[in-house]
Amino acid sequence: MTAQAARLKGVLSPVLTPFNADYSPAPDRFIKHCRWLIDQGVGLAIFGTNSEANSLSVAEKRSLLETLLEAGVPADRMMPGTGACALPDAIELTRAAVQAGCAGVLMLPPFYYKGVSEEGLYRGFASVIDAVADSRLRIYLYHIPPVSQVPITPSLVARLLKAYPGIIAGMKDSSGDWENTSTMLREFQPQGFDVFAGSETFLLATMRAGGAGCITATGNVNPGPILDLYKHWQDADADARQAALDATRGVFAKFPMIPAMKAAIAWKTGRDEWANLRPPLVELDAQQRQALQAGLDAVGFVMPNAQSLV
Amino acid sequence: MTAQAARLKGVLSPVLTPFNADYSPAPDRFIKHCRWLIDQGVGLAIFGTNSEANSLSVAEKRSLLETLLEAGVPADRMMPGTGACALPDAIELTRAAVQAGCAGVLMLPPFYYKGVSEEGLYRGFASVIDAVADSRLRIYLYHIPPVSQVPITPSLVARLLKAYPGIIAGMKDSSGDWENTSTMLREFQPQGFDVFAGSETFLLATMRAGGAGCITATGNVNPGPILDLYKHWQDADADARQAALDATRGVFAKFPMIPAMKAAIAWKTGRDEWANLRPPLVELDAQQRQALQAGLDAVGFVMPNAQSLV
Repeated sequence: MTAQAARLKGVLSPVLTPFNADYSPAPDRFIKHCRWLIDQGVGLAIFGTNSEANSLSVAEKRSLLETLLEAGVPADRMMPGTGACALPDAIELTRAAVQAGCAGVLMLPPFYYKGVSEEGLYRGFASVIDAVADSRLRIYLYHIPPVSQVPITPSLVARLLKAYPGIIAGMKDSSGDWENTSTMLREFQPQGFDVFAGSETFLLATMRAGGAGCITATGNVNPGPILDLYKHWQDADADARQAALDATRGVFAKFPMIPAMKAAIAWKTGRDEWANLRPPLVELDAQQRQALQAGLDAVGFVMPNAQSLV
Repeated sequence: MTAQAARLKGVLSPVLTPFNADYSPAPDRFIKHCRWLIDQGVGLAIFGTNSEANSLSVAEKRSLLETLLEAGVPADRMMPGTGACALPDAIELTRAAVQAGCAGVLMLPPFYYKGVSEEGLYRGFASVIDAVADSRLRIYLYHIPPVSQVPITPSLVARLLKAYPGIIAGMKDSSGDWENTSTMLREFQPQGFDVFAGSETFLLATMRAGGAGCITATGNVNPGPILDLYKHWQDADADARQAALDATRGVFAKFPMIPAMKAAIAWKTGRDEWANLRPPLVELDAQQRQALQAGLDAVGFVMPNAQSLV
């Protein structure tokens, strides 16, 4: 039994999962990538959307988590994604994360059925909490309607917070809708519910509204400058920093984001295997990779110490 | 190694999965329901959308399949759903189904990521087929964009059929879009690709267009009359039979379909535990159940030999 980790704040990266050409996970590169991210000062939201986590089996995720722990990657900097369509899967992964001493878990709602009721989603989250039954559990609700198609509404948050104070720890808002993030910040952040923007696009606005930081895809490739804005959001140049982040993200966002980030790492490390993805995602084609590189060069993109990812 | 089962045709039911109050599966009632369906003459599309299959873990599904086999429920009348977001899950379930001698499998595409490419979906299906590597495999593609949000397009079907003739055996079209079903029937049924309507609403139209039958939710509660239309679609009273089926389905469709079917069985068997669902689905409330019963009485709904489900 480990002690309760401190609350995560700041910038976290939904850690890319490296694959081999046969679609099997590549644990060595996963460890290296996590170490690089920790060195850059960002937290590890392993098993997120950008990690292709729902393309991994529960056994693969547990094995990858074990691999990181054995390699000495610190659990108190981790917020694994543990939500799943099937309750037993969410319970198993959440329990494993808590027992490993992870600082928190990022939990998708069950996402197969659409148009489900608030009561049904409440029961889903409550069942995981009741089954794990561990006071160290800290759940960050994962609101990402563009992908999950199953929103986590303010009234659901209110109900969960009331039933499980302390356990319900915050949210990643990947709605892309600032009005929604703003509502969550206003309604719930004062109760100790830590609102993370779902991308650095809203990092400055989130910090100005009292939020906790951001959990962002591009934290995988551009962590330093994003963390700098988090640290210096009250400085005079904060808006200029935000604009620079937006420019870099804008290049990635011209392409499918996950393949583009992997292509960027493949480019900067000279290791083509970094571009691999598991179906249903596919790698960028040669023309897209060339356009991505040109775009990143134009905004002065660098990945410090990229060779440590090899 | 079992011999290749004959091609499934006719009416199949996406078998409801009974749960206990603690959300655990109830294998005894599952066996009874499957036997009742077989007695009514319909095939067993276990682990479909209406089975809450994506709310079950892989281990639970394998265990339930084993339970049916041990109880002597015939594998050659089964078409288990084996698609999953994670490739290893789809491979494991598909392999288990083939080794059990199931007549076919009904395969969802990976459904977490939206807007994925045809190439990515092709790689997903191809990876399962290549990994299972068994000539007995018969895959029915599961097109259900209202839920999965990931369509299986005619061009993807054409590519899969060309690469895996014989293995790619057909489709369940739950688009609710007759234009799409019609296209699939015209383009692919002549190649031995068996098109099943996704509900009995389109059963007569599907049979008139040369299709294979239907795989329908209400096959769980109203199997006899649906099978009768399948058998008598060329008779003079076929349109009247279709209208009667539509009336019964229309009552269920006024409510969330899965809870409504379970409520109907709970009513007809007098066993309230039949109404249980696993989150994120929830049971009908008392008022809904009353309205459902009144509606079903009005259309003369009966479940013959319902006591065998107890």
